[in-house]
Amino acid sequence: MEYRKVGKWGLKISEVSLGSWLTFGNQLDLNSTKQVVRYAVENGINFIDTAEAYANGIAEAMLGMVLKEYRREDLVISTKIFWGGDGPNQKGLSRKHLLEGTWNSLKRLQLDYVDILYCHRPDPEVPMEEVVYTMDQILKSGLAFYWGTSEWSAEEIEQACKVAEKMNAMPPVVEQPQYNLIFKKRVEEEYAPIYEKYGIGTTIWSPLASGVLSGKYLEGIPEGSRLDRWPWLRKTMEERGIFQEETLQKLKRIKEIAEGLGVTMAQLSIAWCLRNPHVSSVILGVSSLDQLKENIKAVEVKNLITDEIYSELNSLF
Amino acid sequence: MEYRKVGKWGLKISEVSLGSWLTFGNQLDLNSTKQVVRYAVENGINFIDTAEAYANGIAEAMLGMVLKEYRREDLVISTKIFWGGDGPNQKGLSRKHLLEGTWNSLKRLQLDYVDILYCHRPDPEVPMEEVVYTMDQILKSGLAFYWGTSEWSAEEIEQACKVAEKMNAMPPVVEQPQYNLIFKKRVEEEYAPIYEKYGIGTTIWSPLASGVLSGKYLEGIPEGSRLDRWPWLRKTMEERGIFQEETLQKLKRIKEIAEGLGVTMAQLSIAWCLRNPHVSSVILGVSSLDQLKENIKAVEVKNLITDEIYSELNSLF
Amino acid sequence: MEYRKVGKWGLKISEVSLGSWLTFGNQLDLNSTKQVVRYAVENGINFIDTAEAYANGIAEAMLGMVLKEYRREDLVISTKIFWGGDGPNQKGLSRKHLLEGTWNSLKRLQLDYVDILYCHRPDPEVPMEEVVYTMDQILKSGLAFYWGTSEWSAEEIEQACKVAEKMNAMPPVVEQPQYNLIFKKRVEEEYAPIYEKYGIGTTIWSPLASGVLSGKYLEGIPEGSRLDRWPWLRKTMEERGIFQEETLQKLKRIKEIAEGLGVTMAQLSIAWCLRNPHVSSVILGVSSLDQLKENIKAVEVKNLITDEIYSELNSLF
Amino acid sequence: MEYRKVGKWGLKISEVSLGSWLTFGNQLDLNSTKQVVRYAVENGINFIDTAEAYANGIAEAMLGMVLKEYRREDLVISTKIFWGGDGPNQKGLSRKHLLEGTWNSLKRLQLDYVDILYCHRPDPEVPMEEVVYTMDQILKSGLAFYWGTSEWSAEEIEQACKVAEKMNAMPPVVEQPQYNLIFKKRVEEEYAPIYEKYGIGTTIWSPLASGVLSGKYLEGIPEGSRLDRWPWLRKTMEERGIFQEETLQKLKRIKEIAEGLGVTMAQLSIAWCLRNPHVSSVILGVSSLDQLKENIKAVEVKNLITDEIYSELNSLF
Repeated sequence: MEYRKVGKWGLKISEVSLGSWLTFGNQLDLNSTKQVVRYAVENGINFIDTAEAYANGIAEAMLGMVLKEYRREDLVISTKIFWGGDGPNQKGLSRKHLLEGTWNSLKRLQLDYVDILYCHRPDPEVPMEEVVYTMDQILKSGLAFYWGTSEWSAEEIEQACKVAEKMNAMPPVVEQPQYNLIFKKRVEEEYAPIYEKYGIGTTIWSPLASGVLSGKYLEGIPEGSRLDRWPWLRKTMEERGIFQEETLQKLKRIKEIAEGLGVTMAQLSIAWCLRNPHVSSVILGVSSLDQLKENIKAVEVKNLITDEIYSELNSLF
Repeated sequence: MEYRKVGKWGLKISEVSLGSWLTFGNQLDLNSTKQVVRYAVENGINFIDTAEAYANGIAEAMLGMVLKEYRREDLVISTKIFWGGDGPNQKGLSRKHLLEGTWNSLKRLQLDYVDILYCHRPDPEVPMEEVVYTMDQILKSGLAFYWGTSEWSAEEIEQACKVAEKMNAMPPVVEQPQYNLIFKKRVEEEYAPIYEKYGIGTTIWSPLASGVLSGKYLEGIPEGSRLDRWPWLRKTMEERGIFQEETLQKLKRIKEIAEGLGVTMAQLSIAWCLRNPHVSSVILGVSSLDQLKENIKAVEVKNLITDEIYSELNSLF
Repeated sequence: MEYRKVGKWGLKISEVSLGSWLTFGNQLDLNSTKQVVRYAVENGINFIDTAEAYANGIAEAMLGMVLKEYRREDLVISTKIFWGGDGPNQKGLSRKHLLEGTWNSLKRLQLDYVDILYCHRPDPEVPMEEVVYTMDQILKSGLAFYWGTSEWSAEEIEQACKVAEKMNAMPPVVEQPQYNLIFKKRVEEEYAPIYEKYGIGTTIWSPLASGVLSGKYLEGIPEGSRLDRWPWLRKTMEERGIFQEETLQKLKRIKEIAEGLGVTMAQLSIAWCLRNPHVSSVILGVSSLDQLKENIKAVEVKNLITDEIYSELNSLF
Repeated sequence: MEYRKVGKWGLKISEVSLGSWLTFGNQLDLNSTKQVVRYAVENGINFIDTAEAYANGIAEAMLGMVLKEYRREDLVISTKIFWGGDGPNQKGLSRKHLLEGTWNSLKRLQLDYVDILYCHRPDPEVPMEEVVYTMDQILKSGLAFYWGTSEWSAEEIEQACKVAEKMNAMPPVVEQPQYNLIFKKRVEEEYAPIYEKYGIGTTIWSPLASGVLSGKYLEGIPEGSRLDRWPWLRKTMEERGIFQEETLQKLKRIKEIAEGLGVTMAQLSIAWCLRNPHVSSVILGVSSLDQLKENIKAVEVKNLITDEIYSELNSLF
């Protein structure tokens, strides 16, 4: 397992990590969570990501029970604040929700602090001054070591960095975007100017595009699969053209390349993410211990991707 | 119930709210307070305002007992510091009184923090640097999320914002002025330049002008009414010309309009306040559960006020 | 009793107050301290000054036991840090001693905070940045509301204010100098430029010039008196020319004026200090309850000093 | 014992002090540690230096048990953060390790704060903004009074001071470099421009060049000696030319001079360090109480070094 710096900053995280809204408290119960975390840690994963919104807080609560078995210094734990409930002040990035949300997350996690606290989405309703002032207060109070953003535009991230500079506050150090073989524009183009300028790192979610890059949907939508269970997700994917013939052909080509290397399509897709030096870590969703065992091998598959294969993969979408 | 942002800031409060110096511990005992708060919360009110001065601290103490039944995140609680007692340092906005007053209010309220802490009046005897430095200390200590002002001039609010900017401190986000059909100059004219410039919101008190706009005094001053019980209040109202024939005629016209809409004069007057987009919330004083039940309907009456009616109401005073 | 603002700042203190290195734990035991403080508070004194150095901490410890009977908000308590012990780091204004000294003083005083924390002397060995940074940390931690200086030059005070301005820190708000009919140059001339510029107040010690202005030494040095017990103090006074014929003549003239007004020389001397509008409070040393009862009357004597008498008194030294 | 200011700052430390990676928990067990600390304190040493890395935390834990017998104000305790363990985030100067390392060190030391917290090495992988922001947070939280650096280049120290200036943060006040008769370039030349400009003090380690200046290795490497036990240290010394004939001749000359003064070579070497006014303290490693008793005498030997002898010693290497 390789450990990468989060952008220019001092924190080091494993190149693959555990997370996703579906993993803890959803696809995994308490016992499987214990096993998965144990396997992950023993195989060098030190970074676990969650969010107040995941499984309505159950993801955090479950992790809280499991993490007690580990030495805090060995782990990098992050959570994300944005969707804390239905009330008018339980959503978004107001001071009220950022502080109440953080306090509640830490209670569920049974932790004194998280390593990274993310703003789970941008909130155009809250002035950037309010967000930066509050995140800095959280850092100075010792409740988090670093703060980051998730699914913010490059412009929003840059604005946060400028406000922080003006306030003598810590800027965000990391963005958590969607990134995979199919959807790559934001990470590769939009953020290009800010990586060096502000030293931003990225922790990637959706490396398999909701399972599409595992090849699961090549022959239609299996019963009980994610796109079967969540119609809104299926609709999103349809709108993105996932089931068009052209796309299916490209996906089949990825499958061929994977088979040529003797690896799975998922492993190849994850490994492809790791080739991007701006990626600090690829967050794996895990539905079973076996799936983790398979996908964690992407860190070795990474070395099988020749420049030629990398070029072809890049040219597909 | 509509929830409005407090100016440009992240906090959201119900368009009508509970408060007033006469409500808790004065017109309402502990049992009625419980009922009133229960009814308010169940009908979408999330904002409750009090002050260290109200009923000499009893308002806060009573609320403290009542609020324990609610989830803290669902409520926006504010208090106001200025009149804490008779001693030379128990009044005003000195660091000593702001900090001691806040600590004492939080103890009475049995809360770890309030959402908004108001400076209940301006204090020309205290340098603005001292006030802003101290309010920022209170925010950074986690004792309040936001701070505001009450009955400050536009000039004073602007000065506070400038000092805060210079100090990298949080500026005040909200002003609590008197505002109603009769007295509207400050909110509509004096503050006009600062709403956009500093993103100030307003929480309105006295929407019924001490009951005058409920029509209560159209036929003289009933025994036991506010103007009967507090001669100083009666004198103030007399000086403002409330009992002049011209005023009475205008009040009667308001009553006619209300009757024309099939609503009470009080409901119409409150609803008129809600038409002003710079009003974040109208604070209702409550003397009984029935009165709350009646006046909360103003949120629906709001939609009955046509542009024509609004124009006529605006032209009266 | 009149309450005066401390310079331009928000704190208000009684025009006469209790203090002096000789009072608590030295001339007064625990029982007399209780009586004296009780009498003082009942007669409107709200400000009590002490120092870590007074009676080697016993003054603070004794006050700590006595102050528990009072409501904290009614009192303005100050202490002063500089001489905390013999070790190399128990003296002066280093971060180490300022913080350790403050923590220890608060423990002896059994208080969570003092209202004013003084730097008991300037310390040329410590950079002003270190002092201001540390005093601001103490204020922001809630251990003191304001900070001040004692026996600093105008230049040192101005430097502290400038460093604070640059750091966004609270400047010192008050100086505690020696001031009396004989030694008045610093308060009246040296500090003249900084009163308005920085809003500095003063709390005056030695209003009677170590008892000289009580007339005690007009006929020589009585056995058991201060100048008898502390040869170094006697020497200082001799060097300042207290026992020269010219000085004695002037002192006798003060006595005559006092007798003409039907008051004591001490009362007149204290009252004279109170005529200076830059004096926030005159700190009285107290050797017995009777002495306090006598000297507190200076607040009334103040009104007997006509402009003519004031002129003559000013012209003496 | 002379006490010296740490550069221009307020802290005062004894000119010789206790420390070194080999002393506590390595060459000394708990009982000897107690005796050595007792002797040191009784003979005027007030400064004890350790590090999280020394004996893998045992040095701190042992000191923690011993220091409880002393009054905290009498001691200046420092520790150093950099090597806290093997994990990816247990090394270096990231916010995560600086904060976790400090919390853990204080627990082992059973202290609420240290007087000085050192960054044990520079960390080019961490932005200076992150280091300065975090050290300032530690100071403002009351966990340390001052912070310093160890084995940083003059350029790195200057950069830290500039970042601190920009952030209104406390700059580092002290550097802990290697300094002795043989290796003196950094302290005497590289740091020359920053002593006055930033008021940096130095606490010196390795005053005997790993024992070389005690004369121990003049006739080869004795069994059980440091260079015998740690081959890497021996290799370092060989690379630095310690065993070349020219060096041995110079060492023998130092021995002659020491014998001429009737003192040991170690005493003379330590005393030579003390002649440099930029040295705030020389940290002695101690393998036995007897060794401390001998080497502490260097503070007297200092006065035996005439200008002539000092010149000759300076000219050797």
